[in-house]
Amino acid sequence: MRNFDQFSITQAVLERVANAPDDRIRQISEALIRHLHDFIREVRPTQAEWEAGIGFLTDTGHMCTGTRQEFILLSDTLGVSMLVDAINHDHQTAVTESTVLGPFYVEGPPEAPCGTDISGDLAGEPMFASGTVATADGTPLANAIVDVWHSDEDGYYDVQHEGADLVARARFRTDENGRFHFWSIRPAAYPIPHDGPVGKMLEAQGRHPWRPAHVHFMIEAPGHEKLVTHVFVSGDPYLDSDAVFGVKDSLIRDFTAHPAGAAPDGRVMDRPWCQLTYDFRLNPISAATSRAA
Amino acid sequence: MRNFDQFSITQAVLERVANAPDDRIRQISEALIRHLHDFIREVRPTQAEWEAGIGFLTDTGHMCTGTRQEFILLSDTLGVSMLVDAINHDHQTAVTESTVLGPFYVEGPPEAPCGTDISGDLAGEPMFASGTVATADGTPLANAIVDVWHSDEDGYYDVQHEGADLVARARFRTDENGRFHFWSIRPAAYPIPHDGPVGKMLEAQGRHPWRPAHVHFMIEAPGHEKLVTHVFVSGDPYLDSDAVFGVKDSLIRDFTAHPAGAAPDGRVMDRPWCQLTYDFRLNPISAATSRAA
Repeated sequence: MRNFDQFSITQAVLERVANAPDDRIRQISEALIRHLHDFIREVRPTQAEWEAGIGFLTDTGHMCTGTRQEFILLSDTLGVSMLVDAINHDHQTAVTESTVLGPFYVEGPPEAPCGTDISGDLAGEPMFASGTVATADGTPLANAIVDVWHSDEDGYYDVQHEGADLVARARFRTDENGRFHFWSIRPAAYPIPHDGPVGKMLEAQGRHPWRPAHVHFMIEAPGHEKLVTHVFVSGDPYLDSDAVFGVKDSLIRDFTAHPAGAAPDGRVMDRPWCQLTYDFRLNPISAATSRAA
Repeated sequence: MRNFDQFSITQAVLERVANAPDDRIRQISEALIRHLHDFIREVRPTQAEWEAGIGFLTDTGHMCTGTRQEFILLSDTLGVSMLVDAINHDHQTAVTESTVLGPFYVEGPPEAPCGTDISGDLAGEPMFASGTVATADGTPLANAIVDVWHSDEDGYYDVQHEGADLVARARFRTDENGRFHFWSIRPAAYPIPHDGPVGKMLEAQGRHPWRPAHVHFMIEAPGHEKLVTHVFVSGDPYLDSDAVFGVKDSLIRDFTAHPAGAAPDGRVMDRPWCQLTYDFRLNPISAATSRAA
């Protein structure tokens, strides 16, 4: 158990975790050790590069606060978040596709009745959003929880403004026909926060930090898998180069332009507005196939 | 560039870094993406497990301070530090073997003349340490910088005691014959700091956190690679299960026991003391083979 060389050390570390009391922890530990050592043997880091790696991870950790999750940004930009998403939804059909959670969800968002305008004092083009929530066969789901959050017209989320109130963010519940609707403003494309270590990484990798405009939805109903997804704005210039690889064709919708005048809920608009409609279908838990091989 | 599945996403992420301006950064990024995605595809994490992974990395980052480097502990306990060390020294013969730096080195340690007792007011068995520094063929190296640091008799380093002075730590210089000597106390085996995320990981993996007793040496001389190593105390019960995989047979020495009486430097000891002797050989930079395939 000593005098390891660059090949024998891997077996030595694997032997050290062989008695992990929990099978899953042993499995994950063993896979981590093998793949991490393979990575190191492939790139052959100098001591200075190893130190730079330690420094990058440390800086990434220090960047994390209650409202900034730099390790999620790292996972997102390396495609890991969408890979985990794909693995957990790879056998699902006839239900709405999922995508990344992103770093801007706030636990327990403010509840609001359907029809509320959640844009507060934000400037921007008014947006009427509506849709339905149903199970896989189309049966409406009443009283489903619909969490929504999105950027302002400058591409920022409420939590990115220090001390700002929550805005463009709310929790709705579907009615007896599975329907919901609310008002807000049209979201904008935005760069992911790139003033930290992940931004430096993207720059070094020759990448832009932009995400196409979208509205986040997280939907829960009893007996169904929680759906975490976005609806993207069609025509956005970043649909083909999302910094976090989150776009799926089935999640793109026209945010239809309307002139001033009456909206579907009777509100009379004094200026142009846009309309987003999406019908979500959730995966019944009995059919859940996450972790299937 | 959208609608990725769990296999096609890897290629999409690789394409995104293909234009990194620096070749080495592109190479490291590509290898990281491939190995990281392979790891994820093998373990198929649930969303909850992914969140646990993000939480572990975040906690590890938050544990890092000026005197606590949790990511180095993580690298050490996963065998990565010793793997990097092996890669960077794999063609070296006739020179002293290297081992991990560890998290307790302090930049710019206090300089002291040879013969100084660096144990301050620490209790413990006195230790007389001496040796030589030479190049690969045995030619002595005068004026080499010899940094030393080690644990106290309870297994703690000075920097682990909040507000404590630096002790059991110093910088010496070799004389015209490449010799150095100093006094301190015998180091003890110790657990690596295990009150943080890495300690939790070791516990979950069914591992102990102990390292066998040792004295750290970092030696620099012009025209030679910096040597980072330890000298371990023979007979230590943890020599075969070092938590960081740092032991090499060539680095183990008897810390010879002596009765009260005269020591080699003329000091007359009123109680038993021990003696550590090591002759270090440094690798000339012209023969450096780090990064060689």
